[in-house]
Amino acid sequence: MQSRIEKLKERVYRANILLKQNNLITLTWGNASEFDREIGLIAIKPSGVDYDTMKVNDIVVTDINGRIIEGRLKPSSDLNTHLQLYKGFTNVKGVVHTHSRWATVFAQAGKEIPMLGTTHADTFYGKIPCTRKMTAEEIANDYEKETGKVIVERFKGLDPLTIPGVIVASHGPFTWGGNAYDAVKNAIILEEIAMMAWHTLKLNNEASFQQELADKHYFRKHGANAYYGQKDNKL
Amino acid sequence: MQSRIEKLKERVYRANILLKQNNLITLTWGNASEFDREIGLIAIKPSGVDYDTMKVNDIVVTDINGRIIEGRLKPSSDLNTHLQLYKGFTNVKGVVHTHSRWATVFAQAGKEIPMLGTTHADTFYGKIPCTRKMTAEEIANDYEKETGKVIVERFKGLDPLTIPGVIVASHGPFTWGGNAYDAVKNAIILEEIAMMAWHTLKLNNEASFQQELADKHYFRKHGANAYYGQKDNKL
Amino acid sequence: MQSRIEKLKERVYRANILLKQNNLITLTWGNASEFDREIGLIAIKPSGVDYDTMKVNDIVVTDINGRIIEGRLKPSSDLNTHLQLYKGFTNVKGVVHTHSRWATVFAQAGKEIPMLGTTHADTFYGKIPCTRKMTAEEIANDYEKETGKVIVERFKGLDPLTIPGVIVASHGPFTWGGNAYDAVKNAIILEEIAMMAWHTLKLNNEASFQQELADKHYFRKHGANAYYGQKDNKL
Amino acid sequence: MQSRIEKLKERVYRANILLKQNNLITLTWGNASEFDREIGLIAIKPSGVDYDTMKVNDIVVTDINGRIIEGRLKPSSDLNTHLQLYKGFTNVKGVVHTHSRWATVFAQAGKEIPMLGTTHADTFYGKIPCTRKMTAEEIANDYEKETGKVIVERFKGLDPLTIPGVIVASHGPFTWGGNAYDAVKNAIILEEIAMMAWHTLKLNNEASFQQELADKHYFRKHGANAYYGQKDNKL
Repeated sequence: MQSRIEKLKERVYRANILLKQNNLITLTWGNASEFDREIGLIAIKPSGVDYDTMKVNDIVVTDINGRIIEGRLKPSSDLNTHLQLYKGFTNVKGVVHTHSRWATVFAQAGKEIPMLGTTHADTFYGKIPCTRKMTAEEIANDYEKETGKVIVERFKGLDPLTIPGVIVASHGPFTWGGNAYDAVKNAIILEEIAMMAWHTLKLNNEASFQQELADKHYFRKHGANAYYGQKDNKL
Repeated sequence: MQSRIEKLKERVYRANILLKQNNLITLTWGNASEFDREIGLIAIKPSGVDYDTMKVNDIVVTDINGRIIEGRLKPSSDLNTHLQLYKGFTNVKGVVHTHSRWATVFAQAGKEIPMLGTTHADTFYGKIPCTRKMTAEEIANDYEKETGKVIVERFKGLDPLTIPGVIVASHGPFTWGGNAYDAVKNAIILEEIAMMAWHTLKLNNEASFQQELADKHYFRKHGANAYYGQKDNKL
Repeated sequence: MQSRIEKLKERVYRANILLKQNNLITLTWGNASEFDREIGLIAIKPSGVDYDTMKVNDIVVTDINGRIIEGRLKPSSDLNTHLQLYKGFTNVKGVVHTHSRWATVFAQAGKEIPMLGTTHADTFYGKIPCTRKMTAEEIANDYEKETGKVIVERFKGLDPLTIPGVIVASHGPFTWGGNAYDAVKNAIILEEIAMMAWHTLKLNNEASFQQELADKHYFRKHGANAYYGQKDNKL
Repeated sequence: MQSRIEKLKERVYRANILLKQNNLITLTWGNASEFDREIGLIAIKPSGVDYDTMKVNDIVVTDINGRIIEGRLKPSSDLNTHLQLYKGFTNVKGVVHTHSRWATVFAQAGKEIPMLGTTHADTFYGKIPCTRKMTAEEIANDYEKETGKVIVERFKGLDPLTIPGVIVASHGPFTWGGNAYDAVKNAIILEEIAMMAWHTLKLNNEASFQQELADKHYFRKHGANAYYGQKDNKL
């Protein structure tokens, strides 16, 4: 058990460092977590700690209700959002939040990201949705938890595994996946997609994308008939 | 006393280097200072010195009237602006000036930066104001001092600690804080905010932001009820 | 023969690394190949392999019909597109595909890149064409092969050696040349041209370019009367 | 004399490397030269040589008519443009040409860069002019020399020392100064100014700048009453 927790912390530590190395992080803004569903524990970045000095042992371990199991530091203030996503999306085991520039631009504009090319369709099978604005009450009471609930609400009728990310209105992106690395990878991709969508819309505001191409690209990478990559792909 | 001055110079040296490392500086444009209010001395970058070769001992120490107390070199030509800010904003102990790209774009356009998202509200509690254009007389006579006075004038009725930065029309940004590092951190944040605001406005020129969200984000990081970060945060 | 294959693999390995070093690659997106027409063999990047851990021996060698001659890994899923280009463009010996940001923006917008300056004319003698959208049938059946055929179709009446690249609608750029390095170099140039074209069109949507200047710049670098560079230029 | 030539070559070598280090160069595009007016010799980058492998001894030395005095390699194909600038601007001793992104965008758009802020006025005392389009005859006959002549023509009535750079229509920027380093520094500044001007114009197409502020900023850095910097400033 202890060595399993250590591995979980190590993975989450490295996922957070990857966020920084991929230029998705300004100062301390952003966090990655992973949920080991078998042992019921979540590891997450500590709140407001500098990426350059953070150590593996600074990673905080909690249960699904946010009770701290291990760690000297306070967990990310966004912990409760992560927990709601783990509760609402039962196959998700990794979550990432950033304020990466281009995805945050869409969040501030309150706009979803339309599917405009194969780069998008390779990973996100459909437009990337934007949440509704939160009510004054949701903001005032248990804000981070309500943020998670608004995301889950937005995915009613959508499959979070085929659209592994969201734009939270006025705020920024959350992404997720089968583990913390997947969530990091999806955060990198979302940022690329957002940058290219912004400029595509300005070059041709009637740009369109064929559903057939979406099907082709998504399913050559995902699912039973995928043929992209080797058997065991990593970030 | 001497060792206190040495520490002040060391901090100001490192704050200036941080500006460069965070890509806010082209050539020699920009400067950071800190005011040790207890001993009444200010340390500031020397004028026009290359960041790559600058040494701690190149940092210039002056009193609140700009009289040089220590240092072989001339202080930044913007010293008098810094001094006005220290005189006008009595809790401010660190000041930074840069020509960082996106904040300077707003300055050249003569536009304030509206509050459009949580990234903004986490640090700046309200729009980032833009000063009025200076008069021909202000420009001709003691220009740098008058620049400081125009900034202080713009903050009449505003709290410089909750909005720790300004856009000087036709020129560029100034930021400040409780010490030189805070001022550097706020310069980094202002540049991020400016980049995202520019693109948000182009994507949705009616983008809006809820006051409730501003309150939530600002006060979870600042003041008596803050819960973001650990007890002792640094840049 | 074996040492010739080794050299081919080594060149293709280095060409792929150059793509990454020139910031044209996000994650594993992109690939370079080279066709040694004398021995009839093609070396290409393996599918979905991380650029940071890829080794020379991961490079896959196939014949012109895609039969694997050497290598433990699966070739790039875009192999069949490369093969069509080698079949359709008989002087081409190197091919590159990326999802580089600015070229992909034009692809998503479904727009060709007009010739707007000497940077363009130095390498591309005419506008960079954009393919037509593919039919549902082409997408469903042998998609990668059909992608290559659509590119070759678009170059009917054009000389692929004087316009060594294309925008594939909704997808991204392909470039080519006399070897893998040429194709990489043309991918770098295409990305620069695309970035500058986007911003030029927004600054002056009636920007124009003189044919005389195109002739001058293209032919001072290419053909019998070229006088740019030394006798033996490399990337 | 020989050691003077060596020093000239060394300075020109380093100036070229600085262009690359400041991200103004893609591939081999761009060149810096210096004219030692006392000995009547010019050192310039060789044509089409890679910045990463270039050695001091690759630098080519010519006289004012372009006759090669020293060096195994061909000089930059833009040599004749440099020579015209040295002939036409009698106080200029260093020239730089690049295809840097933002300045080239203005060139492709055929637009001058208006004076919009203090960053501009600190170095360029007035708008940065754009040349007229060249005639078919100028392009066909001695193109590089005619490029230089068109630049000199554009500066009729302007002082090249107070506006140390130009936008060549459809092509890109040239900058100059009292030596090769000054020309490099001005190329860096021009690129910053161009980037910020583009975005300023899009944010406020009626942005204006006071002549008083231009006077203040330019003359606090230049001329008899300058007070910016130390006595002996370098790049």
